[in-house]
Amino acid sequence: MPDKPGAERPKYQRIADDLKAAIEAGEYEPGDRLPGENALAPQYGVAVMTARQALRVLKNQGLAESRKGAGVFVQAFRPIRRRGIQRLAQDQWGTGRSIWDADDDRTLSVDQVSVEEVTAPPHIADVLGLTSSATACARSRRYSLAERPVMLAVAYLPYDLVAGSAITRPDTGPGGIYARLAELGHAPVHFREEIRGRLPTSDEADRLGMSAERPVLKICRTAFSTDGRAIEIQEMTLDSASYVLDYEFDA
Amino acid sequence: MPDKPGAERPKYQRIADDLKAAIEAGEYEPGDRLPGENALAPQYGVAVMTARQALRVLKNQGLAESRKGAGVFVQAFRPIRRRGIQRLAQDQWGTGRSIWDADDDRTLSVDQVSVEEVTAPPHIADVLGLTSSATACARSRRYSLAERPVMLAVAYLPYDLVAGSAITRPDTGPGGIYARLAELGHAPVHFREEIRGRLPTSDEADRLGMSAERPVLKICRTAFSTDGRAIEIQEMTLDSASYVLDYEFDA
Repeated sequence: MPDKPGAERPKYQRIADDLKAAIEAGEYEPGDRLPGENALAPQYGVAVMTARQALRVLKNQGLAESRKGAGVFVQAFRPIRRRGIQRLAQDQWGTGRSIWDADDDRTLSVDQVSVEEVTAPPHIADVLGLTSSATACARSRRYSLAERPVMLAVAYLPYDLVAGSAITRPDTGPGGIYARLAELGHAPVHFREEIRGRLPTSDEADRLGMSAERPVLKICRTAFSTDGRAIEIQEMTLDSASYVLDYEFDA
Repeated sequence: MPDKPGAERPKYQRIADDLKAAIEAGEYEPGDRLPGENALAPQYGVAVMTARQALRVLKNQGLAESRKGAGVFVQAFRPIRRRGIQRLAQDQWGTGRSIWDADDDRTLSVDQVSVEEVTAPPHIADVLGLTSSATACARSRRYSLAERPVMLAVAYLPYDLVAGSAITRPDTGPGGIYARLAELGHAPVHFREEIRGRLPTSDEADRLGMSAERPVLKICRTAFSTDGRAIEIQEMTLDSASYVLDYEFDA
């Protein structure tokens, strides 16, 4: 039950809600062209600017996308299903598969790779138990599906734990970071993923090639070794229109 | 690495990024007053409107909040930590505790409660395996912490499965829906939670008492019984500034 009757809401929001309902009812299918601002304005008796604002809301909700000179279309991108638990099962990285392949039948490409020795941000240093003089190995990269950037990720590990291993090199080899940590005697056995939603910073929006008015999902994953020590933190920034997070578990 | 150098970004975003960095570095603590638009404008050499827009970005990111006549303050609300897996363990609802109590040391209140027999939306009817003439029991309510609305939730169950039980009444009794389903011989044994982020609809923003420019997290949970049948779907809409979702699991 809404607190306010619909008539008190801004007109552009009522138009956006109508179009959203029509998309969800299947009246417009993925890839279909939506009515343009010049058709919506007389239909609702509003200014063209108001109709444009309604279409902007749908684009920021990830339900529609502009194609230059052709209009606004129902989003046809099938979001990536990211399986939080199954993807981190030891038999994924244990056999040399990349855990990023476990998400979907489509393959992500990687660019903007950097591996650096850094002073960790305070909230990272705290969780990793780094003393004020200890550094972290920071592995940063961007994931894309076809040409569409979908996720930024930075992994932080205590530098003294990984010095000399392939973790400090751009290519970590088969099975990735977790397989290398296992070889070093620090196999992760337990994970925590913390999820938040917010609007992106301008840098995040730039790198993801998305509007600063479309939300990102933030996932912060901490990996623990058998002795309960936090050995790695991954900070991930996901385009909310590109992902469904999926956690399956027993009661 | 940003694709564009900072100088090309809108000025209000650079100011917002600076303030965000200062908050994260602890220069401003929760509850501290931030510099107002009239202080920021000369400091950055921008119009007051530009400074106002920067503060609006921080509010929409859930990092700051306005207090009428007093200015803009660093958000002091401690978000609710929602433990996705532990809260649904059978020993929570099995002993009559509410699973909503498992999240935090603070207690949520409930209002806007309705229980109705409805024709389920197509995507719900599909998953619950409802024939075109079968109805669903829809349980809708809103959760608040103190006076702050934080979550909307609607549970859908096949009506013929729950007819005559306390599930069709506003108060489901100790242990809630899952304890009652167990008594009916349909104890949930497996769960899937699917998470997305987007901007709220105007109705969602109204009911949550939040800006339509602040994202919501959507959680869709499906509960399965021993025979693999989907027996309940919960659609939840969470104010992104009020929640941290937390999933802990072994490798």
